[in-house]
Amino acid sequence: MRSGIVVPQGLIAHGRGEAFDYLLGEETLPAALAATYAAAAFLLTAKHPVVSVNGNAAALAGREIVNLSSVISAPIEVNLFHRIPKRERLIATYLKGLGAEDVLGVGRSASSTIRGIASSRRRTDPRGIGKADVVLIPLEDGDRAEALSRDGKKVIAIDLNPLSRTSRAASVSIVDNVIRAIPALTDASRRMKKMPRDSLQRSASEFDNQRNLARAIQEMIRYLRGWA
Amino acid sequence: MRSGIVVPQGLIAHGRGEAFDYLLGEETLPAALAATYAAAAFLLTAKHPVVSVNGNAAALAGREIVNLSSVISAPIEVNLFHRIPKRERLIATYLKGLGAEDVLGVGRSASSTIRGIASSRRRTDPRGIGKADVVLIPLEDGDRAEALSRDGKKVIAIDLNPLSRTSRAASVSIVDNVIRAIPALTDASRRMKKMPRDSLQRSASEFDNQRNLARAIQEMIRYLRGWA
Repeated sequence: MRSGIVVPQGLIAHGRGEAFDYLLGEETLPAALAATYAAAAFLLTAKHPVVSVNGNAAALAGREIVNLSSVISAPIEVNLFHRIPKRERLIATYLKGLGAEDVLGVGRSASSTIRGIASSRRRTDPRGIGKADVVLIPLEDGDRAEALSRDGKKVIAIDLNPLSRTSRAASVSIVDNVIRAIPALTDASRRMKKMPRDSLQRSASEFDNQRNLARAIQEMIRYLRGWA
Repeated sequence: MRSGIVVPQGLIAHGRGEAFDYLLGEETLPAALAATYAAAAFLLTAKHPVVSVNGNAAALAGREIVNLSSVISAPIEVNLFHRIPKRERLIATYLKGLGAEDVLGVGRSASSTIRGIASSRRRTDPRGIGKADVVLIPLEDGDRAEALSRDGKKVIAIDLNPLSRTSRAASVSIVDNVIRAIPALTDASRRMKKMPRDSLQRSASEFDNQRNLARAIQEMIRYLRGWA
């Protein structure tokens, strides 16, 4: 926050994540792993996969996101809830410093729009989310997640709250901390790259996100029961 | 935060609270009400009740805390996790602006210490927490809650996380949002003031905090089950 990557509101959102992470025992549980494999299958079979990044995601897992982007050959696009040109450039510079070749969505390059959301948050880059068929959104808000989904894109969310609108709107919701989820997704993608394409497509199409979210909620219930 | 009452770390703590509040459906459930009545009984039968206040508590429920303090005739003491003299004075001035007659614990008036905790956080005011037998701590950290308890004081916590060390260390834990819990506690205290002292003492001594916390956790489980 002091360096301008994260806004104060981002700290509150981070705190919400921390609380849900407690309820997972701060570890990657089976439902998150299942979603991770499905996410890798979607990303590896996509025509135009894109990794969307906001301030919190960059601050928490910038290096890991750059690695993932390179393994799955997907560009990174900056998408901020609180869109400030200076902050966009700051995050792009930060990610490039961590090895990102290019960062989309900065300033006037975000000239496309997603329908159904207000204000500057609808803007996307035509080279990135604008033409993407699969978008990975770590830590996204519900409005954008729903709008991307309505726009016909497959949305992969990383969200510690299994009840959030983001989690419910996504095709795949990884209920896990980004600092664990992104490396796990990178590993899975690296290994699954060698698998035949039709087998990956089957993994993607067979994944039932609502059922898997129910499983994630069951895991939290199990944790709480241990205390009651 | 912008006016200096809350520190950035306080926003993260606030976010954690928000997440647990979701799991209560953002309302006061039976376990919280039971704890509120017990808390009122403890406060009304105390020799020296004190209300401890930090930045988040002041920002979220300053006016409500001033009202409560007047209804139960308990002084307010500022106790900050991140102790900065300027912030102490700021919070005291803020609470006085809301009607507080006096605010203890500011600067050199915090000349007593609680054993078992590090640094400046052990300092208390001899006119307040120093001599208190019952301390209400909305939004306190685990170290201080445990230390106050070890020091023989009855601790009443308001904490949305029923698993926290603060909740477990307290004699009474109100698992609820301070913005609902403080007015509810004020109302309960106003009504229970007329009750005979031995009846209040019985209410206080019969309260089983661990059992009531288990009940609060069950309430969260019930909420989560509705989603799974």
